[in-house]
Amino acid sequence: VGAAANQQVADPYANEPKRHPALVVRSQQPFNAETPVDVLGTSGLTPNELFYVRNHLPVPHVEPASWSVRVEGEGLKRVELSLKDLTTKFKKHTVTATLQCTGNRRDQFNDVKKVKGLEWGIGAIGTAEFSGARLSDVLAYAGLDGDTIDEIEHIQFEGLDSDISGTCYGASIPISKAMSRHEDVILAYEMNGKDLPLDHGYPVRIIAPGITGARCVKWLSRIIASKEESQSHWQQKDYKSFSPSVDWDNVDWNSAPAVQETNVQSAICEPRPGDILEGSTDEVEVRGYAYSGGGHAIVRVDVSADDGETWITAELEPVYNRRSRNWAWTLWHTTVPLPEAKDGRVKLICRAVDANYNTQPESPAGIWNLRGVLNNAWHEVVLSIE
Amino acid sequence: VGAAANQQVADPYANEPKRHPALVVRSQQPFNAETPVDVLGTSGLTPNELFYVRNHLPVPHVEPASWSVRVEGEGLKRVELSLKDLTTKFKKHTVTATLQCTGNRRDQFNDVKKVKGLEWGIGAIGTAEFSGARLSDVLAYAGLDGDTIDEIEHIQFEGLDSDISGTCYGASIPISKAMSRHEDVILAYEMNGKDLPLDHGYPVRIIAPGITGARCVKWLSRIIASKEESQSHWQQKDYKSFSPSVDWDNVDWNSAPAVQETNVQSAICEPRPGDILEGSTDEVEVRGYAYSGGGHAIVRVDVSADDGETWITAELEPVYNRRSRNWAWTLWHTTVPLPEAKDGRVKLICRAVDANYNTQPESPAGIWNLRGVLNNAWHEVVLSIE
Ligand SMILES: [Mo]
Ligand SMILES: [Mo]
Repeated sequence: VGAAANQQVADPYANEPKRHPALVVRSQQPFNAETPVDVLGTSGLTPNELFYVRNHLPVPHVEPASWSVRVEGEGLKRVELSLKDLTTKFKKHTVTATLQCTGNRRDQFNDVKKVKGLEWGIGAIGTAEFSGARLSDVLAYAGLDGDTIDEIEHIQFEGLDSDISGTCYGASIPISKAMSRHEDVILAYEMNGKDLPLDHGYPVRIIAPGITGARCVKWLSRIIASKEESQSHWQQKDYKSFSPSVDWDNVDWNSAPAVQETNVQSAICEPRPGDILEGSTDEVEVRGYAYSGGGHAIVRVDVSADDGETWITAELEPVYNRRSRNWAWTLWHTTVPLPEAKDGRVKLICRAVDANYNTQPESPAGIWNLRGVLNNAWHEVVLSIE
Repeated sequence: VGAAANQQVADPYANEPKRHPALVVRSQQPFNAETPVDVLGTSGLTPNELFYVRNHLPVPHVEPASWSVRVEGEGLKRVELSLKDLTTKFKKHTVTATLQCTGNRRDQFNDVKKVKGLEWGIGAIGTAEFSGARLSDVLAYAGLDGDTIDEIEHIQFEGLDSDISGTCYGASIPISKAMSRHEDVILAYEMNGKDLPLDHGYPVRIIAPGITGARCVKWLSRIIASKEESQSHWQQKDYKSFSPSVDWDNVDWNSAPAVQETNVQSAICEPRPGDILEGSTDEVEVRGYAYSGGGHAIVRVDVSADDGETWITAELEPVYNRRSRNWAWTLWHTTVPLPEAKDGRVKLICRAVDANYNTQPESPAGIWNLRGVLNNAWHEVVLSIE
């Protein structure tokens, strides 16, 4: 194995799909890009071509006619399901869900102390209407029922995306999430009424609403019922959070649970940092998104222009109407009176409250973690006053 | 009706039960008292006689032989169940659950701005092993099943405690909480293996684990399946939280949901505020409790002696081992190295993280609310150095 052999290995990134030029690219290989902020906070559904992309590996190209997913594991009969099987043997189920990269808003952590990872702003999040077969129906088809469930604690997923050594992307979710019909986990083959885009897992991906994006495995190839979590790098040594006093030299990855449901989050999408207001302006329209994992509803979003001295409670869309199974973000908007500008600047802050009355911490310093995940500190936007 | 008639009204507080002298009394009529802090954080179960008491009204005295609960409502057959019915017709189910008053830790809010309500410290919380009949079994017995459930969104409870006008205490929980066997809601008739104490609802109270104490109606008399929440004062106009900019002159009670599952919480039980350390002391043992509503596990507790510059991660008991149905608090302890004392003082801070990676906000100012509920700011204890 030498230079010649290496030359024969095809460039794994030679066949990447075309992407929309408005995506805000954070890395090219693997491809990672944010939804443009002007699209966030304005429409409930994010268009497929502008939906944030979080790839860990090259995009695999799959022939739909030959694609299948294998379902197997502890107490199950091994089943191989084609795309036709998925669409004809199982009822089509539709769920509107927000996906958020575990690293969304990581950039703010770098102001505290440098973190390792893509410099995500507020755009590593999006919402779409996904349709597919219920995971609980597929597992039941493979024989998973109340009698066998005691031996199983996790449902693992594998994707067709893999590195040069052949190691594929993998993740798992708890059995309680996977099996309950009320949890709405699906094997999605449609996104906003169209085939999944290549970047989003064509032909089939997992959508586990309320769970962090990293568990919603794309280009799905295998489903494994197990006593164990996925042993993948991404389940065991990546998407976890620690105390700010834990760093790469003293981290014990086993001491923290894998991120599943995520914390309460919000961000200001308009105005944008650095936007310039005329000195005579006495109020500003503010809008953004808010979201909480686990189906927890957003019940309030507050905005302040005076460092939290006074808060304006925003209008929510949708308004709060049920406690659970809120899988999609809540958009919000309000008008905020502006105080006297200090040094020609005004800082806007937002923070959300969910149905459990959990809210966001004030500052990123207290939640800083070595991998820079799950930043949900109050979001700030500083404006200039002319 | 005049002076003579009024004299004939017996003192409604004439027959209050005897209480343990170690309880930290916050009000006598109605009786409200905290668990002594030296009991908190040391044992997983709080003894019955030292369990915090939150009464809204005089304690009703009930003859167990004549007690019954009526179950009725939308699509149900009306059922009347005696204590013997409850203990013989339904399987006994035991659940170890933490109860927390919605006002626990309210006292800290008064440093921000005065709030209305009892001045609770950190002791309006306790944990016991409760046994009783599952609410889901009782509702099924009254005919509530999958077919009728669409018309029902809440299960209301009424207690035998009432004011002079005859208005009784009432509250409700969502149907999803009430009906799922996994949610472990019971009609409890035992607390730590004994009859319920008079102060805790003898002979039967609701225990809705993971839900705030105010919904766990004591001296239970009625269960009503309904489209509507309880219309009681305590459901509609009391246990709710608002923005710090909402006060009694501008509150719209309908704009916030009733507290049910509660936010992530922790407190330092030892050392105590004002404890004096010798100047040569270079470390201190710290212990306390942590709890999150909704069954969300506590996955980490951090303690700092330097205003959050560095954090020590505490030992947890029990250690984290499952994601859901964690109805009881987590006790924690650790040893914290002490920095140089400033002005002869050292401040300890704790904060917890739950399985959704929600954590506590730094300061009470951002979560101040007119009723002073759900304070879960970082807990501080200031020590003196000799
Ligand atoms: Mo992610
Ligand atoms: Mo309470």
